Amino acid sequence: MKILSFRYNDVVSFGPKVKKEEAVWDVLAIQEALQVLPSFATTIVEGMTAGFEFVEQSRKLVEAAQNSENPEQFKYAFTEIEWLAPIPRTTKNIICVGKNYQDHAKEMGAESAPENLMIFTKAPTSIAADEQTISAHADVTSALDYEGELAVVIGKKGKNIPTKLAYDYIFGYTIANDITARDLQAKHKQFFLGKSLDGACPMGPYLVTKDEIPNPHSLSIVTKVNDEIRQNGSTKDMIFTIEEIISEISRLVTLEPGDVILTGTPAGVGKGMNPPTYLSSGDVVKVSIEGIGTLVNRFK
Amino acid sequence: MKILSFRYNDVVSFGPKVKKEEAVWDVLAIQEALQVLPSFATTIVEGMTAGFEFVEQSRKLVEAAQNSENPEQFKYAFTEIEWLAPIPRTTKNIICVGKNYQDHAKEMGAESAPENLMIFTKAPTSIAADEQTISAHADVTSALDYEGELAVVIGKKGKNIPTKLAYDYIFGYTIANDITARDLQAKHKQFFLGKSLDGACPMGPYLVTKDEIPNPHSLSIVTKVNDEIRQNGSTKDMIFTIEEIISEISRLVTLEPGDVILTGTPAGVGKGMNPPTYLSSGDVVKVSIEGIGTLVNRFK
Repeated sequence: MKILSFRYNDVVSFGPKVKKEEAVWDVLAIQEALQVLPSFATTIVEGMTAGFEFVEQSRKLVEAAQNSENPEQFKYAFTEIEWLAPIPRTTKNIICVGKNYQDHAKEMGAESAPENLMIFTKAPTSIAADEQTISAHADVTSALDYEGELAVVIGKKGKNIPTKLAYDYIFGYTIANDITARDLQAKHKQFFLGKSLDGACPMGPYLVTKDEIPNPHSLSIVTKVNDEIRQNGSTKDMIFTIEEIISEISRLVTLEPGDVILTGTPAGVGKGMNPPTYLSSGDVVKVSIEGIGTLVNRFK
Repeated sequence: MKILSFRYNDVVSFGPKVKKEEAVWDVLAIQEALQVLPSFATTIVEGMTAGFEFVEQSRKLVEAAQNSENPEQFKYAFTEIEWLAPIPRTTKNIICVGKNYQDHAKEMGAESAPENLMIFTKAPTSIAADEQTISAHADVTSALDYEGELAVVIGKKGKNIPTKLAYDYIFGYTIANDITARDLQAKHKQFFLGKSLDGACPMGPYLVTKDEIPNPHSLSIVTKVNDEIRQNGSTKDMIFTIEEIISEISRLVTLEPGDVILTGTPAGVGKGMNPPTYLSSGDVVKVSIEGIGTLVNRFK
């Protein structure tokens, strides 16, 4: 199932993509009108606290809509909605793995990749949507860079999760661009500020449930700037696997439904180019991941 | 006004301390019973989105209770409630300033304090309450350390806040202990993991509104471990002032009501002792800040 979050008539909602149509089912509207379930979430994060049951609930709601007198009222064309990030607001900062691809660690000037997981965070106020125009923040940075990344969305609360159970805690996947002000990242030592500018964490377009991606370590990940390929990697090259990342973070920090983990970026960022080449107003960045789609953002 | 958050009869609520009594007014219960205001918050963070008006609203609710037939029903003795952190759950990670006191920067092995603001975060799942017993996490760390700190609570959404307007964005102050696993902090390079163990951010006992603390840069801050004084500093020794911290963070990140900023710790942490001396099961840490109170936590 491909789930998306959106705003329609000033109301924030979410629901599955309609199969073979450029449209979405509004599951909140279906539940409100038809009272299909005894109770249902009011936000996507709340929905995910029910774990994978949330997918079943959404299926039931769509079925009820299809069998109702006027299914069309619950379906909105993509052109009618304002897209939001699949998780429009995380309840923790976005959790990010640094230097998780060998070639990227090298281009960043490291002798080798870190021996241990390096984790920093991005403020939830940095979340942006697919197709959203993002400020190039020329007033505070002259070194704005992209980082295409596979994002893992947690679907179950967990602490001390063993690697072999880690997939049970995943709800699904989306695409993220870990936009980074390289100058601020260096100036402030710890990465938080340089990673947390408003709009610096676009995610989307879909949250793809994990059943659709049997092996998240076999996906091509391609980032283009103005249609020039900059990053052309594969999630098979992650140093710490998704299972290891979830297990190791959860040994220290309690993971919760709706938490988002960015799993690192492959080589090819602007800082690694010769000379370094950063983003500016007018640039369009596209991050594509096999099986999920393409995340597109223009900078202004 | 001293505001506290608590759980009473399984319900999370908040309200001002009763003057000259060891008790709290339950403003949510007052509003529900007496319908004093046309509308009122359901959580303390929601309350703060009304800015300082929230304090006025709370005053009106207490007054209405005092003038009601049975004021006692809205007052709970401290012995009857379970204390919570003043902000039981922040909507961003807790924002922390690293090495903001010269002597502390030195004891941590730095040649000098950082020239620029160093900001890292702690997961909101690490928040704990005054008097809460906290795990010493002996399974994952052998270098658990305390850091007594003045915490600033933001009361108004802001971006690009000039230093001279920074105080307008403060709601109040509380005490925090920025508990840190030194071994994990070093091992994982970025500070997030070593700072985010469950319970590693006790805060309280009160959120003191800013009108009660005219100069937050003149407060003594004392940390004791088992009643031995370890840190004995003053908030006058901060390198970056509270105004500078708020202004600089907000130049890059949007601040929101309920955001909590820890302003750094003075010298005297366990890592700075010779030999380094860390926390273990049975230890009791007390952080006292003038005008706010004392935050007490036992480790198990």
